[in-house]
Amino acid sequence: MSGAILILSGPSGAGKSTLIHKAEPLIGDYYFSISTTTRKPREGEIEGVDYHFVTKEYFEQEIKEGEFLEYAKVHDNYYGTSLRPVKRALAEDKLVLFDIDVQGHRLAKERFGDIITSVFITPPSYSELKRRLLDRSLDNDEVIQKRLDNALKEIEAISEYDFVIINDDLDRATKEFVYIANSARLKLSKEELSEFVNRWRSS
Amino acid sequence: MSGAILILSGPSGAGKSTLIHKAEPLIGDYYFSISTTTRKPREGEIEGVDYHFVTKEYFEQEIKEGEFLEYAKVHDNYYGTSLRPVKRALAEDKLVLFDIDVQGHRLAKERFGDIITSVFITPPSYSELKRRLLDRSLDNDEVIQKRLDNALKEIEAISEYDFVIINDDLDRATKEFVYIANSARLKLSKEELSEFVNRWRSS
Repeated sequence: MSGAILILSGPSGAGKSTLIHKAEPLIGDYYFSISTTTRKPREGEIEGVDYHFVTKEYFEQEIKEGEFLEYAKVHDNYYGTSLRPVKRALAEDKLVLFDIDVQGHRLAKERFGDIITSVFITPPSYSELKRRLLDRSLDNDEVIQKRLDNALKEIEAISEYDFVIINDDLDRATKEFVYIANSARLKLSKEELSEFVNRWRSS
Repeated sequence: MSGAILILSGPSGAGKSTLIHKAEPLIGDYYFSISTTTRKPREGEIEGVDYHFVTKEYFEQEIKEGEFLEYAKVHDNYYGTSLRPVKRALAEDKLVLFDIDVQGHRLAKERFGDIITSVFITPPSYSELKRRLLDRSLDNDEVIQKRLDNALKEIEAISEYDFVIINDDLDRATKEFVYIANSARLKLSKEELSEFVNRWRSS
C-alpha cells in the first residue's frame, strides 16, 4: 500500500482553507503540501507551516535533480512545490493534499496520474466571489481585479477535475469534501494493482 | 442536477450483495438496476425485485429502439439491462447501482462516461474465492469451476476500474463502499458542468 493525492484548486475566496479545517477531524491522516521558498520568513511565519524556507543554493540543486513539480522566480526569490516531502508522505501511506492552480493540477496529473483525485472548489457565482474578496478587505482593488480575472480563466478548466464543490453552504460542502477525501485515499497505482493481481492469482 | 452511476463488478462470491445491504442506510437514495428477462418467473421470484419480467414482443421492440445497454439470448429467453428505468432514476437525481461484468462496465462507460464511478469488489485471493464458492454449496462443481475461470479472466481488467474493494473485512469494506458511493453521487456530466460555468460567469 502507498498513499494517494487529492488536488484542490479554485479561486482565492472559495473557502478552501475553512473547508479543510472543518473536514480535518473526519478525513484521517494527511499531509498538506506547502510551498518551498528562498525568501526570508516574514514576522510570524513558521517553517513547515507557512513555507519551507531554504537557501538559494539548495533550491537550485533541487531544481537540477528534478525535485520540483513546478517553480517560479519572483523578484529574485524562488517559490516552488517540492516533491521530496510529497514522496515521503506517500511512502508513509498518507493522503497528500495540494492546493494548486489549474496548471499545477495538469503537471501533477502527468507525474502521479493514477493516484490523483482532483476537486475544484468555487463560490456559487462570480458576483459572490467578488463580494467575498471585497468583504475580507485583504487585498487592494488591483489585486482583487487580478483575482477575479484569474477566476474567470480558471473556471474554464473545471471539466478537467474529478469533482466540483460549490461552496455556498459550508456544512454541505464539508460533507462532500469528506466523502471525496476518504474515497481519494482508496486510489491504487497501476503498480499496486498489478502486484495485487499477481498475488491474488497465486494465493 | 441529475443523478450518477456506480458500477459494481467482481466475481460471484465477492460478497457484493452483503456489502450493498450493509451500506444501504448510509448511502442515501439509490436505484439498483435489475435485469429484464422474457423467461417466466420461478417460484418465489418477484417482479421488480429479482427481474423485470416482460414479453418477448416487448423485449424485441426495446432492442429495436436501442433501449438495452446489453442483452443476450439464452435457451430461447432474452436477458438484458434495460436503459429505460436507469434514465428515469437519473432524471430523479438518484444514484444508480449496476451489478455488471467487465464487458457491461465497458459498455456503460461508452454510454454514460462522465457520470460513472466504478468499483471492482473481490475476495482477498483466488483460494479464498474458491473456499467461499465451495462453502455456500449453491453450485455444482462444473459451475464453480466456470465461476473460478471467469474470475481469473475478469480480474485482469481490474485497472479499468476507479476503485478496488478487497472484501476480507466486512466492516472496512462497507466503510470504503460508503465513501465511494457518496462521492460517486457528486459526479457531474459535461453538460451540467458547462451549464454551471455559464451561470457562474453571468451571475
